[in-house]
Amino acid sequence: MKPTPPYYAVIFSSTRTDDNDGYQETIAHMMDIGLKHPGCLGLESVSEGDQGISVSYWKDLDSIKSWKAVTDHITAQKLGREKWYKSYTTRIAKVEREYSFEKP
Amino acid sequence: MKPTPPYYAVIFSSTRTDDNDGYQETIAHMMDIGLKHPGCLGLESVSEGDQGISVSYWKDLDSIKSWKAVTDHITAQKLGREKWYKSYTTRIAKVEREYSFEKP
Repeated sequence: MKPTPPYYAVIFSSTRTDDNDGYQETIAHMMDIGLKHPGCLGLESVSEGDQGISVSYWKDLDSIKSWKAVTDHITAQKLGREKWYKSYTTRIAKVEREYSFEKP
Repeated sequence: MKPTPPYYAVIFSSTRTDDNDGYQETIAHMMDIGLKHPGCLGLESVSEGDQGISVSYWKDLDSIKSWKAVTDHITAQKLGREKWYKSYTTRIAKVEREYSFEKP
């Protein structure tokens, strides 16, 4: 994933509950349809114990807005609040610069 | 950590090597002095297997710039490239909006 800034990042930091019912399936489905959503540039997600950070990258704010309005995504967010997450913060941020390192 | 946007996020996504020599100690030291650095608003870091995402939050670009110039941080970055990281991407992003959820 190597888009050129500026583009947008959605940083989702979460703390999970102990309820795993349907979680993995829903996350897999969200990643699948998220990556196919127009304007999505990429997605990375890491979890450790009950902590998780997921960052999705987007062409512009309109893409993020239309992703927020996808029915399956709305359902997943609702289930997330009811069952899977103790707390979370979502941040919308404009990527201004980036640099990468790769071992030769 | 509840600053009001706008503020800055540094998103550091990495893939580790198998070399752990000195890694944990250095990360702990970086988190310690990073959090004390003027303008640092918070820090979160999650790793899973060889994948890691760390996000630090900053008052402004000048704080990030001065953090980049800290001697111990420069040394850690050098060691990171030589030993601990297969690859990484650092993104500087301006947080424009945020919303949080906390289970009642």
